[in-house]
Amino acid sequence: MNSIQNPHLKFDFLALGESVVDFISSDPVANLGEAAHFERFAGGQVANLAMNMARLGNRVALGSCVGEDGFGQLIRQKVGAAGVDLSCLQISSEAPTTLIPVTRTTRGTPDFSVYRGADTCLQPNENLLDAAAHSGIVHTSAFALSREPARSTILQALEVARQNGQRVSLDPNFHPRIWPDVADFKAILQAAFRYVNITKPSLDDCIRLFGAGFEPAEYAAHFLQWGAEIVAISLGAEGTFLATHTGEQYRLVPNLISVADVTGAGDAFWSGFLTALLDGHSPLDAIRSGQVVAEIKISRIGPLTANLDRTEIFSKAQLIQYQTCHM
Amino acid sequence: MNSIQNPHLKFDFLALGESVVDFISSDPVANLGEAAHFERFAGGQVANLAMNMARLGNRVALGSCVGEDGFGQLIRQKVGAAGVDLSCLQISSEAPTTLIPVTRTTRGTPDFSVYRGADTCLQPNENLLDAAAHSGIVHTSAFALSREPARSTILQALEVARQNGQRVSLDPNFHPRIWPDVADFKAILQAAFRYVNITKPSLDDCIRLFGAGFEPAEYAAHFLQWGAEIVAISLGAEGTFLATHTGEQYRLVPNLISVADVTGAGDAFWSGFLTALLDGHSPLDAIRSGQVVAEIKISRIGPLTANLDRTEIFSKAQLIQYQTCHM
Repeated sequence: MNSIQNPHLKFDFLALGESVVDFISSDPVANLGEAAHFERFAGGQVANLAMNMARLGNRVALGSCVGEDGFGQLIRQKVGAAGVDLSCLQISSEAPTTLIPVTRTTRGTPDFSVYRGADTCLQPNENLLDAAAHSGIVHTSAFALSREPARSTILQALEVARQNGQRVSLDPNFHPRIWPDVADFKAILQAAFRYVNITKPSLDDCIRLFGAGFEPAEYAAHFLQWGAEIVAISLGAEGTFLATHTGEQYRLVPNLISVADVTGAGDAFWSGFLTALLDGHSPLDAIRSGQVVAEIKISRIGPLTANLDRTEIFSKAQLIQYQTCHM
Repeated sequence: MNSIQNPHLKFDFLALGESVVDFISSDPVANLGEAAHFERFAGGQVANLAMNMARLGNRVALGSCVGEDGFGQLIRQKVGAAGVDLSCLQISSEAPTTLIPVTRTTRGTPDFSVYRGADTCLQPNENLLDAAAHSGIVHTSAFALSREPARSTILQALEVARQNGQRVSLDPNFHPRIWPDVADFKAILQAAFRYVNITKPSLDDCIRLFGAGFEPAEYAAHFLQWGAEIVAISLGAEGTFLATHTGEQYRLVPNLISVADVTGAGDAFWSGFLTALLDGHSPLDAIRSGQVVAEIKISRIGPLTANLDRTEIFSKAQLIQYQTCHM
């Protein structure tokens, strides 16, 4: 552990939302129907972020729901082995563990199907709400908010977090296969944003929500208007755009590094970003730390290694170049 | 084709119910969570039976529903390649293709999870009901009857079939993971049996429905009382017990053959059994034909070969020994 731990907090970070099994095709194919062999991984963006946050030395709990089945046991085992507290991990007998078959791609968007199951069954029990009240940052995702009863449970937990002075972050990851109705998605997301301090949409998320053809600053303005204080828009190869409610605007210049595996780069960025914010760094330094962890992830195949040294990350973050944008 | 085709019929056989993708673990493991690699197969008992019936030279349609996804395309392709008519195969945008991960086992019961999806969405459209009215045997399964709206669609189709003088067969395959409530299962199954002429429960199905400790004849009596005319109970290594509404009772003595792969033996039996009934054979000769096809299946790895010669099967059936049981 090398975090600045607040002794009044139970956890530095509570991740609320999906843990799933990903079935990834062994061969790169264009269409799921063409894939004959699959490898399964314990994952889901929220569970992956929880594991990354633990690897960075944070005290982390995962508020998620799995099925009473072998895949649920697998997730418990993997998430626990990464150092994540399991006291808020619920088990439902109502539905199997959520499963997502996805094609391996060399380039382009993978083909996937979503078999929603237990992740939607998250209940607002005492454990979960107590953790929400006593975690430095409570995080969730649009995926998790897309179905009841998980949606109501998470909104209640976010409210409890804010009432207790904690910060809330939200990944507005949008895909039409999760939210067929964009208007519906936008309304529910906006309602959730009344609790949100920190968000990191992708440019694709922004385009799907607010239409194409705008500048990053214009997209960021929407999220700031909804109540966010720190908005980091990931622009892919173009880097990251940051806007804050105090009027700061920056753009990170990405380093030219050799890419081994971009899978999980977004979750890696999130973990460096939120860890720096937990340690009291400025929003600008936080996205620079996010960039450092994303680059560590991209440069090697597989998940982040355990016990990343955050002091080293924060030092490297000071070397990440940025531009100040003028409004 | 070598069937005795009734020119007034559109199909010899209409299979109503589940088509699914099975994800079978590459290695034999006790628990799904332990399996890292999976191979996917287009299957489902109803779709498998449809393919077997086509391989035996019957004119077959599959009344089933798949998702608007790669797995749905895979099923269409596989089922079509086996010679099954696809005009009653529906595609739903409401749910993904039903998916069943299952462990490979060397012995014992496999571990599995069921991700119900599009198979439950079967709609009673004109095509489907017209096929039900004009198919010699209309077949379905308890699995398919376990969820609405498929249940109501299938019950309506069975009613149409009987009103038009066709025969109905039902596989009362029961598993607590599909029907958590046995009383509920029994009530719905009994209601469906008012349309059923032919059934082939396993001994396990009988025990789950009516309790342990009874003789095959006693289990058969329940199904006859519910309205079935031909009840074949598969007893595994103990062979098959047959009872009819006219009071006949027989028991097949299984041949001692070398077992290569028992997967799909039940569906293979069904196909020989129903093909013989379609060709006007007696119930006794029909289960003997079922036994012949099951033995062909068991003696080799993989699915039944295409274009099985039914004349040859019927000849071999005459060599299958049986005992007449006295009540």
